[in-house]
Amino acid sequence: MRENVTSFQQAHQIREVFGSVAPRLGEVQQFLDRELDQALPPVREIAGYVLGSGGKRVRPALVLLISRMLGYSGERDIRYAAVIEMIHTATLIHDDIIDESDLRRGKPTANRKWGNQGTVLVGDWLYTRTMDLSLELGDVEVMRLLTSATLQMIEGEILADHVRGVLELDEDTYMDITRRKTAELFSAACALPALFQVSTLHLTETLAEFGRSLGMCFQLVDDALDFTSSRSELGKPVMADLREGRMTLPMILLLPRLSRNQRKQIADVLTSGEFGGMGQNQVLEMIKTSGVLDEVHRRASAFADRAVQLIEKLPSTPERATLAAAVTLLLDRRS
Amino acid sequence: MRENVTSFQQAHQIREVFGSVAPRLGEVQQFLDRELDQALPPVREIAGYVLGSGGKRVRPALVLLISRMLGYSGERDIRYAAVIEMIHTATLIHDDIIDESDLRRGKPTANRKWGNQGTVLVGDWLYTRTMDLSLELGDVEVMRLLTSATLQMIEGEILADHVRGVLELDEDTYMDITRRKTAELFSAACALPALFQVSTLHLTETLAEFGRSLGMCFQLVDDALDFTSSRSELGKPVMADLREGRMTLPMILLLPRLSRNQRKQIADVLTSGEFGGMGQNQVLEMIKTSGVLDEVHRRASAFADRAVQLIEKLPSTPERATLAAAVTLLLDRRS
Repeated sequence: MRENVTSFQQAHQIREVFGSVAPRLGEVQQFLDRELDQALPPVREIAGYVLGSGGKRVRPALVLLISRMLGYSGERDIRYAAVIEMIHTATLIHDDIIDESDLRRGKPTANRKWGNQGTVLVGDWLYTRTMDLSLELGDVEVMRLLTSATLQMIEGEILADHVRGVLELDEDTYMDITRRKTAELFSAACALPALFQVSTLHLTETLAEFGRSLGMCFQLVDDALDFTSSRSELGKPVMADLREGRMTLPMILLLPRLSRNQRKQIADVLTSGEFGGMGQNQVLEMIKTSGVLDEVHRRASAFADRAVQLIEKLPSTPERATLAAAVTLLLDRRS
Repeated sequence: MRENVTSFQQAHQIREVFGSVAPRLGEVQQFLDRELDQALPPVREIAGYVLGSGGKRVRPALVLLISRMLGYSGERDIRYAAVIEMIHTATLIHDDIIDESDLRRGKPTANRKWGNQGTVLVGDWLYTRTMDLSLELGDVEVMRLLTSATLQMIEGEILADHVRGVLELDEDTYMDITRRKTAELFSAACALPALFQVSTLHLTETLAEFGRSLGMCFQLVDDALDFTSSRSELGKPVMADLREGRMTLPMILLLPRLSRNQRKQIADVLTSGEFGGMGQNQVLEMIKTSGVLDEVHRRASAFADRAVQLIEKLPSTPERATLAAAVTLLLDRRS
């Protein structure tokens, strides 16, 4: 198992990485606030609730960090950081309808508070408004990137919904779904800034691949955290994935080591959402002692290494080191 | 009451109006079929079900008819006719989740068959894919028109959801909701073809206004049909609007003529979805004998007249007369 305390080193990195874009993140928040102020009251209320529920703002921070690294000094980074967060928020809102989730980030989900009725439309509004915001500046290449990422994300959700409750999910399918559901929006967030200036257009593909690797790393760590974080740290119940019928990498790796009877019991949790014969603590214990979390961490590290390799293709600036620190930070997070 | 038999004149008009674009409508269908063939299986199944459930294809027919009128001979009309139908279909799918409807066009709704889970995402996929289809050709002005119409449509749905169950809905609010929910997509369908050629760009605004008037006419007729069509003609229960908590123009106009007790009973239908103290036949009888349907028809006719006036600003071609016939057709439809 990896060390379980946030080191001094890591605390320092957090300040270094996110401190440098903190003022710009404040401007992204102002952009989002203005958007919601001008929106219809139900949109303001519901989208404001989800946007204000304490997300980590990782995707917008990446847009800002990479824009700075590429020497961009305009205002597009603020707008598209907000757009990326709006797309992410729309997905969360529709996801919670699909999962029939009750909690997200420790608070009741929007659909729990307002019902499916209101929340479907607020998600639709957010998706469509982001197109408007891109069209205002006529940024066709940015739109292509955003639309492609959004479409892949939705297809990822559709595929994930299709294999919900399936015990025998193979690793390749899982990786493909993860890439679509999570990594493609990270990829768009990281590649976007290259489109802001003609002089950086040639870096688009490298940054897209960097973001994709980082997104895979991020999601694998998230999947492990679902087994290691307590309810209060994660803001949602431990093993929510399993309860909601989703096989993730730790469980996929554990499966071959289980007896026929144990597999049957996991299958029951997937379909019923309840821990029955095999208690929750028993499953946790098996996950924790089997070494599968170390294996997941190794895969996440491999994606992080790939991301860092790609960074070396970028211009050598002080921000390049910050970006590498961001990768380590996302790999080593504990909640 | 207006005459209740389809006249020879009307049958002739139907052939004249839709006959002229029938082969092109077939190509739109092929375009949609190809789209679905390439889509993920759940999208193919669910979107195919809704797209194949016998919609009248009024919006794509308008795109085709107006493209021909403007002398356009390329292939954009096929693509954007399909795009408009895909946007309309996405709205229907999400609408049915919101309304918790069981029937649409006489068949079980998609959410009834597949649950909210699958249908939310298929709606999202359709919306996003239409953006992709517009981006492929780099048609920024077309995208602006489509995005603006889609955003207004979603806002119309949000406002409609907000006033659901409200008895005292004023006519202005109702008209504003109707414009957003229905008329703006008609407007986009009619204005789009003007963007296909530089020589017709100056007609965009006139065609947008024409489409908006036609859309208002279309929806007012639809609202009246909810009271006059039988279940089998309309493919959904008579007075579905009232049952689903929606005040529409006939009922808004009837309200001042009702006693306090009768108003209370209508309010009960709006909130409970059931005809209780005041039977369904009693409400129907009051609507039919009160003259409010004639009043609704007069308002619809006024919008149709405005549409025909606007047609006169367009180039005098044989197709112009066809377009005027289309207006009359939509005004006088019986189901």
